[in-house]
Amino acid sequence: MNQDIRKKFPFYIKNKDVSYLDSAASSLKLKSVIESLNDYYANNGSNIHRGVYRLAYEATNQFEETREYVSKFINSNLNEVVFTKGTTDSLNKIASSYSDFIFEDDEIITTELEHHSSFIPWQVIAKEKKARLKFLPLTEEGKITVENFKKVISNKTKVVAITYVSNVLGYVTPIKEIIEIAHQNGAIVILDAAQAASHLKIDVKELDVDFLAFSSHKMYGPNGVGILFGKEKLLNQLKPFEYGGEMAHLVFKDESSWKDIPYKFEAGTPVIAEVIAFKESIKFLEEISLDKIHEHEMKLRDYTLNKLKDVKGLTVYNKTAETGIITFNIENVHPHDAASILDQNNVCVRAGHHCAQLVAKFLGVTATLRASFAVYNDYKDCDNLVNAIIATRDFFESF
Amino acid sequence: MNQDIRKKFPFYIKNKDVSYLDSAASSLKLKSVIESLNDYYANNGSNIHRGVYRLAYEATNQFEETREYVSKFINSNLNEVVFTKGTTDSLNKIASSYSDFIFEDDEIITTELEHHSSFIPWQVIAKEKKARLKFLPLTEEGKITVENFKKVISNKTKVVAITYVSNVLGYVTPIKEIIEIAHQNGAIVILDAAQAASHLKIDVKELDVDFLAFSSHKMYGPNGVGILFGKEKLLNQLKPFEYGGEMAHLVFKDESSWKDIPYKFEAGTPVIAEVIAFKESIKFLEEISLDKIHEHEMKLRDYTLNKLKDVKGLTVYNKTAETGIITFNIENVHPHDAASILDQNNVCVRAGHHCAQLVAKFLGVTATLRASFAVYNDYKDCDNLVNAIIATRDFFESF
Repeated sequence: MNQDIRKKFPFYIKNKDVSYLDSAASSLKLKSVIESLNDYYANNGSNIHRGVYRLAYEATNQFEETREYVSKFINSNLNEVVFTKGTTDSLNKIASSYSDFIFEDDEIITTELEHHSSFIPWQVIAKEKKARLKFLPLTEEGKITVENFKKVISNKTKVVAITYVSNVLGYVTPIKEIIEIAHQNGAIVILDAAQAASHLKIDVKELDVDFLAFSSHKMYGPNGVGILFGKEKLLNQLKPFEYGGEMAHLVFKDESSWKDIPYKFEAGTPVIAEVIAFKESIKFLEEISLDKIHEHEMKLRDYTLNKLKDVKGLTVYNKTAETGIITFNIENVHPHDAASILDQNNVCVRAGHHCAQLVAKFLGVTATLRASFAVYNDYKDCDNLVNAIIATRDFFESF
Repeated sequence: MNQDIRKKFPFYIKNKDVSYLDSAASSLKLKSVIESLNDYYANNGSNIHRGVYRLAYEATNQFEETREYVSKFINSNLNEVVFTKGTTDSLNKIASSYSDFIFEDDEIITTELEHHSSFIPWQVIAKEKKARLKFLPLTEEGKITVENFKKVISNKTKVVAITYVSNVLGYVTPIKEIIEIAHQNGAIVILDAAQAASHLKIDVKELDVDFLAFSSHKMYGPNGVGILFGKEKLLNQLKPFEYGGEMAHLVFKDESSWKDIPYKFEAGTPVIAEVIAFKESIKFLEEISLDKIHEHEMKLRDYTLNKLKDVKGLTVYNKTAETGIITFNIENVHPHDAASILDQNNVCVRAGHHCAQLVAKFLGVTATLRASFAVYNDYKDCDNLVNAIIATRDFFESF
């Protein structure tokens, strides 16, 4: 990876010795993103879609320009890109709105690999509607396979709510085949791409996916920006997510009508500066290319796993993951304690259930440690992680 | 007003000749807010509530510190402050969640002065639940009075969804008396304070209001930050707004439980930097004091109205407003055309229905022009507005 990459992340100015390995929770932010935020916040400030003066026009154009960048990034139509506040927001809104089409005895398929945001909305809806929530059986390793998907899909299935990349184990779902089979059975697929969007190239037309969600803050971009892709035909069938502001077309005391998609789904003042700045993330990802980023992250992962191979007292749960995540535990050390000691060694990793308690249950543990690699990480980060793990193990062994 | 105020707004560095009079749509942003945003985005980037390393702790503390600032600002308990994505988001979420308590023949009271976000959610719910949406009759001027509220309230009323300050006419609702009468009739009051929070001091305990919503972006703060205040007892009765992430307590395949308020209502990664930075807005507002800000804005309003008194061909719709908003039209000139010419004179005002089409209908027009004053405006802005209005009128008269 180009040595200049780190220079694009101001984080390293004050934190040059920190090995930030928690990008799966939230990534560091690009300088170009921060500069774009600054530009709007310092030199503008006006609201969009409502103003007829120059500043408001400029803000509106810059905002809508990001929609164009996103639609090219995922190969969708322009009006299929809805801005939300994050992946959780996207997945909840689509579930809530699509639940109009769920009736008693309908089936919803999900998996134990899901982030809470991907499957709890459907757990709640299934209860309300007396529909059936079915879990695709995972392989022994914890993987989703087409074979096992075939075992649970039926013509009663209305929705498949599934992750593209597991946020705990880093496994990549064979999603293209799953979508094809889902469609053959008359079901739609809602894809949680939060952990995929900054690692794998996504082409919604090629995947033929129905809905797809991801977040800017895991893509070197600002907080508060979620993307919801939906097929035009499906979006047109859905009721609005929220009411008010500029999503209304004509408003009377008795009834109101809505604007066309995507505006119908964007009630209220958006996170203007943040959406504007998000296009800088996309420019960056495309400049380097997701293939190269993925390759880089896998190299770091393989290098680290190779070094960890001989470390005793360590369990790695996802040795065959296809993305740059290593999930592990140190024997007899609670992950939270371990993360604290790793932090003292300037290594930031996540400890806990990673908002995916079913995965922890599947692994038979209450929590794990997760190190996740990103574009700015290097071999020194890997060495730091390995050394810090050994130091942590030794520290707790000494008691 | 202190001449140094403008120095706190970087907008004026590149736009020193611009009279920004659209703060009711979105205000300019404070330097201290931008610096705080920069600090998180450049030097941190980690997620909150989930990490056990120093950077994540710091971000979490700074985030939760804003909750303390907000709770003191409105005099609530700490766990009564829920972060949302904006006022529209707050009002929709509370309506959607509280709709569990709405049944056939129940009554919901609202007014024609409402922003779409305040009443359309209830228009939709009323239809779904076969409840009745009643409009409080406005006075001839367009004001909400206690007397007229008494005419519509009954013991069938479950919810009063009402604005604190009209975003079009700037009228202040006699809300304390209305809340008292609503409570006597067993109804709760949901107060849209989006246009109040940066102009009037709000004390939720003194008002005894049940739910209240406002947004950072109209308070010299960042986009994407909404505040929802709810009385602890009521919040505890409500179902979560969204599911996923850290709002879940225990998660099983069959069912899940939720954390306590306010976390139960905060699913997903929040707009971390923006919430952290919002406390700088509160510090600023409290340093100057809302009384002084309100007084300043009223002086500018009165000064402007006095100058406009003798301008022919002008209709001012809200001569008796109690906040710094002037809503008007120039005879025979479409407001959008007028706003364009005003813009050419470096005056930014809003043109349209201001997301409140019922107000336009009430006034018997399709659209209006709205000039709104804020803390950074001065008499020069008033003069510019008056001169630009005259120039606009003359420009169109010349055809």
